[in-house]
Amino acid sequence: MADLLTPPDDSVTLLNGHGSRRAFLRNSALTAIAGGVLAACKGQAKEVAGVSQKPPVPKTASGVDSSGGTMPAGAAATPTTTDADKMDAMHEAGIKSFPAKTEGKGNQPLTPVMDGNTKVFTLTAKPIKWETAPGTFRDAWAYNDQVPGPLIRVKEGDRVRVILKNELPESTSIHFHGLIVPNAQDGVPFITQPPVKPGASFTYEFTVRNYGSNMYHSHHNSTKQVGMGLLGAFIVDPKAPRAIERADLDHVMILNDSQGYTLNGKGFPATEPIVAKRGQKVRIRFMNEGIMIHPMHLHGMPMTVISKDGWPQPAPWKCDTLNIAPGERWDVIVNCTEVGTWAFHCHILPHAESEHGMLGMVTALVVQS
Amino acid sequence: MADLLTPPDDSVTLLNGHGSRRAFLRNSALTAIAGGVLAACKGQAKEVAGVSQKPPVPKTASGVDSSGGTMPAGAAATPTTTDADKMDAMHEAGIKSFPAKTEGKGNQPLTPVMDGNTKVFTLTAKPIKWETAPGTFRDAWAYNDQVPGPLIRVKEGDRVRVILKNELPESTSIHFHGLIVPNAQDGVPFITQPPVKPGASFTYEFTVRNYGSNMYHSHHNSTKQVGMGLLGAFIVDPKAPRAIERADLDHVMILNDSQGYTLNGKGFPATEPIVAKRGQKVRIRFMNEGIMIHPMHLHGMPMTVISKDGWPQPAPWKCDTLNIAPGERWDVIVNCTEVGTWAFHCHILPHAESEHGMLGMVTALVVQS
Amino acid sequence: MADLLTPPDDSVTLLNGHGSRRAFLRNSALTAIAGGVLAACKGQAKEVAGVSQKPPVPKTASGVDSSGGTMPAGAAATPTTTDADKMDAMHEAGIKSFPAKTEGKGNQPLTPVMDGNTKVFTLTAKPIKWETAPGTFRDAWAYNDQVPGPLIRVKEGDRVRVILKNELPESTSIHFHGLIVPNAQDGVPFITQPPVKPGASFTYEFTVRNYGSNMYHSHHNSTKQVGMGLLGAFIVDPKAPRAIERADLDHVMILNDSQGYTLNGKGFPATEPIVAKRGQKVRIRFMNEGIMIHPMHLHGMPMTVISKDGWPQPAPWKCDTLNIAPGERWDVIVNCTEVGTWAFHCHILPHAESEHGMLGMVTALVVQS
Repeated sequence: MADLLTPPDDSVTLLNGHGSRRAFLRNSALTAIAGGVLAACKGQAKEVAGVSQKPPVPKTASGVDSSGGTMPAGAAATPTTTDADKMDAMHEAGIKSFPAKTEGKGNQPLTPVMDGNTKVFTLTAKPIKWETAPGTFRDAWAYNDQVPGPLIRVKEGDRVRVILKNELPESTSIHFHGLIVPNAQDGVPFITQPPVKPGASFTYEFTVRNYGSNMYHSHHNSTKQVGMGLLGAFIVDPKAPRAIERADLDHVMILNDSQGYTLNGKGFPATEPIVAKRGQKVRIRFMNEGIMIHPMHLHGMPMTVISKDGWPQPAPWKCDTLNIAPGERWDVIVNCTEVGTWAFHCHILPHAESEHGMLGMVTALVVQS
Repeated sequence: MADLLTPPDDSVTLLNGHGSRRAFLRNSALTAIAGGVLAACKGQAKEVAGVSQKPPVPKTASGVDSSGGTMPAGAAATPTTTDADKMDAMHEAGIKSFPAKTEGKGNQPLTPVMDGNTKVFTLTAKPIKWETAPGTFRDAWAYNDQVPGPLIRVKEGDRVRVILKNELPESTSIHFHGLIVPNAQDGVPFITQPPVKPGASFTYEFTVRNYGSNMYHSHHNSTKQVGMGLLGAFIVDPKAPRAIERADLDHVMILNDSQGYTLNGKGFPATEPIVAKRGQKVRIRFMNEGIMIHPMHLHGMPMTVISKDGWPQPAPWKCDTLNIAPGERWDVIVNCTEVGTWAFHCHILPHAESEHGMLGMVTALVVQS
Repeated sequence: MADLLTPPDDSVTLLNGHGSRRAFLRNSALTAIAGGVLAACKGQAKEVAGVSQKPPVPKTASGVDSSGGTMPAGAAATPTTTDADKMDAMHEAGIKSFPAKTEGKGNQPLTPVMDGNTKVFTLTAKPIKWETAPGTFRDAWAYNDQVPGPLIRVKEGDRVRVILKNELPESTSIHFHGLIVPNAQDGVPFITQPPVKPGASFTYEFTVRNYGSNMYHSHHNSTKQVGMGLLGAFIVDPKAPRAIERADLDHVMILNDSQGYTLNGKGFPATEPIVAKRGQKVRIRFMNEGIMIHPMHLHGMPMTVISKDGWPQPAPWKCDTLNIAPGERWDVIVNCTEVGTWAFHCHILPHAESEHGMLGMVTALVVQS
């Protein structure tokens, strides 16, 4: 099992193509401004051979402009800055800035302290400011100053202790969503425990019995508290992984819609791309902590669905758009056969784009040759 | 096949734990008020042994407070009634009252009158007042004064007659959602029959050809009429059940969002818990008669999905959160291995909780040892 | 593989039943007006024998009114025109007009021009007026004056060229949703190509590697552009179809909610029925180009789900209500065993009916004997 994704050092390379300039020029009817566009765009125009493995034939290659005599009436011979250009410039600026820097990064691995054989994780819940997109700061409630909270990752059979410290102005609790735990550790105030008052602590402890992609989050005044950011991933690696779930990269993608549309606490262009080498397998663990569905669409190549809520799907199946409902987790494997920068976004389009450009639940899978 | 769930006589027992008092006290930083909390809460703190089957080790047992020197700054040594306490008191009061008594109970089995070999069910549609939660009465349209309407349950191959009497101020009809019936019995006014006028009756009759979890509801002015409550479950038991669908308890859970968020016509705390013994298998038949999705999340143990719209799933699969869309039915089996009171709710959190406490689409699976 | 559905010449026959008049009269408590109702309705009252294959027994046949002494109080002996009648008349008028004529028809097969072995499709995007339901004209943006755009249908392994001509007031692009194409052909401005400016053209070209039910649509300012109508089906037939996917009829059903609730660009009663002969198999390709889920419910007989996003489901499964999320495609096979006119609609009821009658995402499967 590979480590979680390390983001690339040089984001500029994400949008660098290979030899695409000529194809771009061929395809622009507005060559007068094409240079400027290219400077920003540098799209992935290296053609990947089709199934037939034949190289692209130049005279019918992709990107050949067949205009000329076929240009529609009204095409401007001498372009000027139009409303369309202004809109495009906003779109371009957003994409050029991807992945944009923001303060704070959620979902960072939390290293446990060992107490004998017990892995001890401490989570402090408190109000913070969280930058969801460049310049957009929101009042959030966070575990350890992160939204999503830190990634807890253990192995099937581990003994785990989670110490919750409440520095919020109201009571709270933690529910381990998807884990089979003793009832007293289930985190539901007045059913399994008293609420954890402001200033107080509570300790959860259990043996991890079931593996998979799970979550932890507040279960007290949860519409507000989870909405404010008290949520995180709790991944349990199996003792004996199935062959199908072995992957070179492992990416958690927590969907949320409470503080804008976010992936792992950030909206585009501050979202994190997934960067893989051609031929690698990437496991993506979708988790929905919002209150709306989000059908995630990957361009370029299919996803194979291998697990639901941490439980193996008995008959894995392929798709390119996977609908994830609140509380659900779906694990998929992407076999990175196709080189390029591939858009990856919620297909409820208002969650992904406005007239000002891409936003919210948009990222990219970058497959490097 | 077991009878449908008989609700427990003594609701107080639902929230009684086993030997949990000490664990609670250990875990409360506010012991001055813990007694009061316990009186209400009595959480399920008996630890269920993990996969390793080892008994919990006392000194690292769940619920051990590791605070003391680790208490965050600002923790109140002498608690006073705070806003947090007031909120918690509202949450506690809701849970203490569960399952709360309300007038009327929907989904009650309707015993047919036999006419030769034909099972005759009479449904009278008329306006009523329906109490969805304690003190909340709504104008409803109901079959036989119930929301959902009475449970019709027959066997594959039965001959069934359903007499609809319309005491509503507008025309109506019944569609048998999911049943394969002759077209004339399909209940769509102006396509398969005339509308049934106010004061009139209509008789449906057919042989039941396909088994499974189906529904009946109005198919005339249906946004309003189904929204007002003209809906119910129509279950057909198979002649030859599959091994996987045999269960000790059988629970119908009709989801609705038209008159508040309800399960079987009631919102929390007036919802009905499911009470099982450890080791029993519970079949839950989710049916969505609303206009929104509802991803239902069961705490504590997974659900195995065995049927969709009454049709067997060829490869049953496990989950803990199942998304049910309007018109869908999903059947699951829960193997009640874990003792305790387990929250069971829609994971669109505003459908389940507000600052005033749990509400709407929340119930519990109570597994007794 | 059969051709796409040819709509019936005579829509009146859709609602003609066989010998149903007597049953209707028996079932109407308002016989004084029943003749008028029948003139419009002529419901499908021919009973299809049940599993037992016994003919219906006259004295217990469906449609027998068991009223008389059981008539509820208040039943009018001499009916007058009531509010209920007025409402019914509106419902009846809508259904009588189905399928209603409107200007324009989307999703029409586009015949390619051959350039050697390359299939060349030209799509011109421009503003039009589109009639979604009788008398309701909307400002739309369309490919080749159609909403949805013309149907592109090719075979696995084909070389395809798509020429996009932009006659819109803003830039655009085309994304081939679900197709595995070289990155430069993926249609995402500033990532894989420059935006196609007003008046300009762009040429996409690729070898079709994966078969199935796919889509094409704008990927620039897409919330608006797809919402306005820049979308269409892109179907790839496999070289070697599976046995389960062979069908007598093949129907594309594009769901949308941006310009009212529509199926293939039209709202009821202007939607297109699916007309089959008893015993035929109909393949339906659901595609959601809207921003909401749409759980489609077929009356009368189940659907077998065979593909998701063009990829085979490893274990096909049955349902009668299939939830389709934005961006998803689901292929089903309906084995037309039941004769009659069967309602087929989104089960989010406000998407299908109001007090004025059926609307939006409603059509019918007509199975002729």
